[in-house]
Amino acid sequence: MDYSNKFVSLLHDLKLEGRYRTFVELERVVGEFPKAIWHKPGGGKQDVTVWCSNDYLGMGHHEDVLAAMHDAIAREGAGTGGTRNISGTNHHHVALEAELANLHGKEKALVFTSGWVSNLAALGTLGKVLPDCAIFSDAMNHNSMIEGIIRSGAERFIFRHNDTAHLRELLKSIDPARPKIIAFESVYSMDGDVAPIKVICDLADEFGAMTYLDEVHAVGMYGPNGGGVSEQQGLAERVTVIEGTLAKAFGVMGGYVTGPELLIDVVRSYSASFIFSTSVCPHLAAGALAAVKHLKSNPDRRLKQQANVKMLKQLLSEADLQFIDAPSHIIPLMIGDAHLCRQASEILLLDHQIYVQPINYPTVPRGTERLRITPTPDHSAEDMTKLVNALKDVRSKLGWSYVHLAA
Amino acid sequence: MDYSNKFVSLLHDLKLEGRYRTFVELERVVGEFPKAIWHKPGGGKQDVTVWCSNDYLGMGHHEDVLAAMHDAIAREGAGTGGTRNISGTNHHHVALEAELANLHGKEKALVFTSGWVSNLAALGTLGKVLPDCAIFSDAMNHNSMIEGIIRSGAERFIFRHNDTAHLRELLKSIDPARPKIIAFESVYSMDGDVAPIKVICDLADEFGAMTYLDEVHAVGMYGPNGGGVSEQQGLAERVTVIEGTLAKAFGVMGGYVTGPELLIDVVRSYSASFIFSTSVCPHLAAGALAAVKHLKSNPDRRLKQQANVKMLKQLLSEADLQFIDAPSHIIPLMIGDAHLCRQASEILLLDHQIYVQPINYPTVPRGTERLRITPTPDHSAEDMTKLVNALKDVRSKLGWSYVHLAA
Repeated sequence: MDYSNKFVSLLHDLKLEGRYRTFVELERVVGEFPKAIWHKPGGGKQDVTVWCSNDYLGMGHHEDVLAAMHDAIAREGAGTGGTRNISGTNHHHVALEAELANLHGKEKALVFTSGWVSNLAALGTLGKVLPDCAIFSDAMNHNSMIEGIIRSGAERFIFRHNDTAHLRELLKSIDPARPKIIAFESVYSMDGDVAPIKVICDLADEFGAMTYLDEVHAVGMYGPNGGGVSEQQGLAERVTVIEGTLAKAFGVMGGYVTGPELLIDVVRSYSASFIFSTSVCPHLAAGALAAVKHLKSNPDRRLKQQANVKMLKQLLSEADLQFIDAPSHIIPLMIGDAHLCRQASEILLLDHQIYVQPINYPTVPRGTERLRITPTPDHSAEDMTKLVNALKDVRSKLGWSYVHLAA
Repeated sequence: MDYSNKFVSLLHDLKLEGRYRTFVELERVVGEFPKAIWHKPGGGKQDVTVWCSNDYLGMGHHEDVLAAMHDAIAREGAGTGGTRNISGTNHHHVALEAELANLHGKEKALVFTSGWVSNLAALGTLGKVLPDCAIFSDAMNHNSMIEGIIRSGAERFIFRHNDTAHLRELLKSIDPARPKIIAFESVYSMDGDVAPIKVICDLADEFGAMTYLDEVHAVGMYGPNGGGVSEQQGLAERVTVIEGTLAKAFGVMGGYVTGPELLIDVVRSYSASFIFSTSVCPHLAAGALAAVKHLKSNPDRRLKQQANVKMLKQLLSEADLQFIDAPSHIIPLMIGDAHLCRQASEILLLDHQIYVQPINYPTVPRGTERLRITPTPDHSAEDMTKLVNALKDVRSKLGWSYVHLAA
């Protein structure tokens, strides 16, 4: 049986479409963020400025976070050596979960090894244990939510992105007695746009649905305590489940859900991906806890990030570089072609020491390929000017002509 | 819509069956392993000896591992801030993957956030991209393999546990031209028994199947380099894919697969749970690399563990305490009833400062509830005597009468 041929052909397809992924090997440097060292494929190193990190606030290098991690490792070691149930529950998990529940004003929280797994586990379990459950899912929901919904076996209704009229239509279309979950995100990763949370909560009330809100691109960054867009808009208590990540603005690794005690206990008790995984290392929980606490009481990095986002948008506009002007911190610079997008990224890296990964299908729809730019509080005015000048140079070389905005 | 009632009833079912999971909150203490501090539910602390950890060799507290982690955090910070494709590939990932490929004599390796995800991703992808694929799965395979196989959509054939005659029958039953994967484990977690790897590889050759071997309970512990049972038996090169974990004998967190370059590239390129997850923190990769390297060149901890396993089995036999005498380091002490098993664990914890988690359904079949005991190199002769005396005390109090061995 020749399996190699099949594998060769699968990889060839990706290369032909310009969406074969080549990983850029980085070495991060504490104190230099968002600069990093690029280890080149053929050997050799080069300094680069990273413009596509989801360490949105640079907390991955924050002294409080690193101190908490060093301390926990020195006292308690590396891994837990077990699933949460079999010797793998640590007092740092318990403390972090209490803090996360508090952050979102919920009764309980549960930490997972990743945000991807937290969506798989929570949606996968809720949709399964509620008999005849219907899940209403925004068309732009993240892969992990889709995987969770599919895994649950619940009937899935996809509503057009952020289209609450369509959502209402779908909610009306089924038996009112059926359990219902509306699953959506606050900030959508690739367009940077924001959901109409209040209207969705109103619909949930009207139709007796639970709401499941993915805030992974918002926690730490929005709301007076960093509780996300739901906190910023005063809507957190109306949302049934808030899901978040420890790996983006909180700078570490892992995911979580928060919600009513009974619901979290059901996810804890019935979710295979939770039950059968070794738990998160204690020092990761300690580091994340430090990040959550810091961002609760210090808005400085949030405010600096917001100022930088505003400034960069201004510079891009002045240079007539087309981007989606969304209300969040995510700036999608549109290219619209997989090959051009990849080439743009290569020129930025090789000629300008700027690293922005090309975003292609399946992460975004074909024809909306883009450079997804994420300003952090640590990018300087000089970094921004350099980026815009580099983008102008790349455009003059490649001459892309994206005209249709996705949003 | 009253969701709470449904949740209450789901949790009530678990409690009624004696399998509602109560997490034991631990604080690990570097230098004291396998001792730990138990944070009691009502407050207060108590020293305990842990007898159910999967930090099988105590590497979670090893100085090389901790030094590598401290160093990487000090230099590079906490998280990566991205998926592997979007700014999240770090030079420590690359170094670890090279080392893991070398450990198993394979061309390439790929690291995941957990062993659970590595099985979901690899089996889920391979079974999906190979048209009309058939997956032959051992009846006792871990939940993560089963989830991967289900996710793949491939047709699944379950062969009776370790029954190669049954496997042959099933292989013969389908069209020889179909792609085939035989998925199995080397050491089975709950019984501690070992697969007939050679016979399965012979069948794979005969029927043109790939082999997928989960070695999570064996890596670091078997074979001259800690490459697992496949290395110990000189069969690693005959196995197509070897999957392992960084969270058990290597003491940290994360999972991996190793195999042919093309196959690994396909998993890397097509697996959603890999593509859409933030990558493992650099310092975790650095710590795991230190553990792998240490166990490659130092058999001391392996040998001490094996001696301890032998000694404890001897003591249990002398005390007429019934266990499954499997060829691995896992000692399942059979109770056979969920409530008795939970009570046994409680008495051990409260009266004897010994922590062994009860293992109930769905982790093991009903009627085979057990205390799963894992001796490490760091348990002393005194710890063993204490454990056996405590078990005798518990038996005299509860008088369980398990007679049928599961193996």
